[in-house]
Amino acid sequence: MTPLWQSRPVGVVGLGLIGGSLGLDLRRRGATVHALAHRAETAERARERGLADRVDTDPAVLGECGLVLLCLPLDRLLAPEPALREALPPAAIVTDVGSVKGPLLDAWEPWLGGRFVGSHPMAGTAHSGVEAGEEGLFRGRPWVVTPTPRSDPAALEAVETLAKALGAVPIRCGAGDHDRAVALISHLPVLVSAALLRAADQGATAELAPLVRALASSGFADTSRVGGGNPELGTLMARHNRPALRVALAAYRQALDDLEGLVEVGDWEGLRQRLEHCQMLRPGFLQD
Amino acid sequence: MTPLWQSRPVGVVGLGLIGGSLGLDLRRRGATVHALAHRAETAERARERGLADRVDTDPAVLGECGLVLLCLPLDRLLAPEPALREALPPAAIVTDVGSVKGPLLDAWEPWLGGRFVGSHPMAGTAHSGVEAGEEGLFRGRPWVVTPTPRSDPAALEAVETLAKALGAVPIRCGAGDHDRAVALISHLPVLVSAALLRAADQGATAELAPLVRALASSGFADTSRVGGGNPELGTLMARHNRPALRVALAAYRQALDDLEGLVEVGDWEGLRQRLEHCQMLRPGFLQD
Repeated sequence: MTPLWQSRPVGVVGLGLIGGSLGLDLRRRGATVHALAHRAETAERARERGLADRVDTDPAVLGECGLVLLCLPLDRLLAPEPALREALPPAAIVTDVGSVKGPLLDAWEPWLGGRFVGSHPMAGTAHSGVEAGEEGLFRGRPWVVTPTPRSDPAALEAVETLAKALGAVPIRCGAGDHDRAVALISHLPVLVSAALLRAADQGATAELAPLVRALASSGFADTSRVGGGNPELGTLMARHNRPALRVALAAYRQALDDLEGLVEVGDWEGLRQRLEHCQMLRPGFLQD
Repeated sequence: MTPLWQSRPVGVVGLGLIGGSLGLDLRRRGATVHALAHRAETAERARERGLADRVDTDPAVLGECGLVLLCLPLDRLLAPEPALREALPPAAIVTDVGSVKGPLLDAWEPWLGGRFVGSHPMAGTAHSGVEAGEEGLFRGRPWVVTPTPRSDPAALEAVETLAKALGAVPIRCGAGDHDRAVALISHLPVLVSAALLRAADQGATAELAPLVRALASSGFADTSRVGGGNPELGTLMARHNRPALRVALAAYRQALDDLEGLVEVGDWEGLRQRLEHCQMLRPGFLQD
């Protein structure tokens, strides 16, 4: 059976990194892509880059789509414009790519019912905007799908089929589990890493500051990378995943208190054991 | 004038990552390298790898050296074996490569006087041991030299000339400033990153643990890298730079409290401003 996304146009709303990359990959896999852009300049540039077969700023462009991918920032996903809501075809499967799933399901499921599927392709680069989309972004990456009791099985399967077609690895889990997991491994690291940047800045006197910067090496660069990333994205993730992030912060505080306590009392054997545990833990968190 | 390290053999004590890399680079630059290894097997393998012209487990191998580089772990630098101390040639310039400078100067300067130079080539890889040494490790990297009022200017210059010959960038600063700076950008990140690994492990229920690991991406991998590194090295750095590390930890705690407080009260504009500041700060800490 031909997958839905090959028999009818696929709608892509938003042509930033994720939307643009989806457009490129879907077209390469034989789909027809109809995209909605917010601004005329974005639409123009998206056409030039070939991110979709049709690009328009009028939501009517989604009219024929059987499946629509909402690739907007979290805040716009949580408070969609009425014109977008009205333009979604009545029977289309609708999915999103937001990095928090509970609040999105709360916002969309009561209205679209089982044909709304919460999903989260876990891929990213340092770039954003209409120039950022690239081919093959999802290859080998997890693509989380979060079913609920209301979910239409055919809708879930359509999204997973699409994910697999782009080389991603679908993972089904509850929205709450997704949100708790990404709080620990994605949203918490942003704050941990941002605090390091601010400590390295504010923990040095004016005289010491140039030396601190001159001596910072690859270890500091790596540990500070996500803390020095996109401030809007970091704020949106914290804002919309706040309960799970607070729990993750509490776990972090406990772990840091423990290590700091060992330094305070000079328990070097205890510290060595903790660091040995960390060395043993880390490979379990790395992609194969 | 021929630099000292070309007119007489250079001694290298310890043939791990730093000692082995120094041996390779010095030989390539025309120096004769006489190396002291702790164990017979290390000496044998170092000879096979060509890390030095002569390698022995007898400290007498250092007898003719005009300059000796102590490339041992911090604990062995701080409590050197009597046989090593006695074998150092009476007039040789002696320098070390330890990652903490105050305690090392306290240990060595009273005994060797101005011909002991504290130094710290800031280069590293994920590897250690006799197989780890590699050519070009110091190229473009900072090489800190920490003068004191007692330092012999000719000894300081000899070490800096050697550093430059290997492509490193000498930076002179006080030992205390060095130790405060590396506490912020090297020793603090180890604990910050280790606490993240432990939080991601302990902050998840047994049911959630596999999902947390499956969804961890490159951001988590980068932020957790130094926390999952060599436990012995991390412990030695904390132990021997404890006062500066405690100050750095206090600065970190203040920065984290501030961010956590914004999440607690839901001050998203405040959080966005802090993350914007971090994004602006980070390039100042990256190597050109």
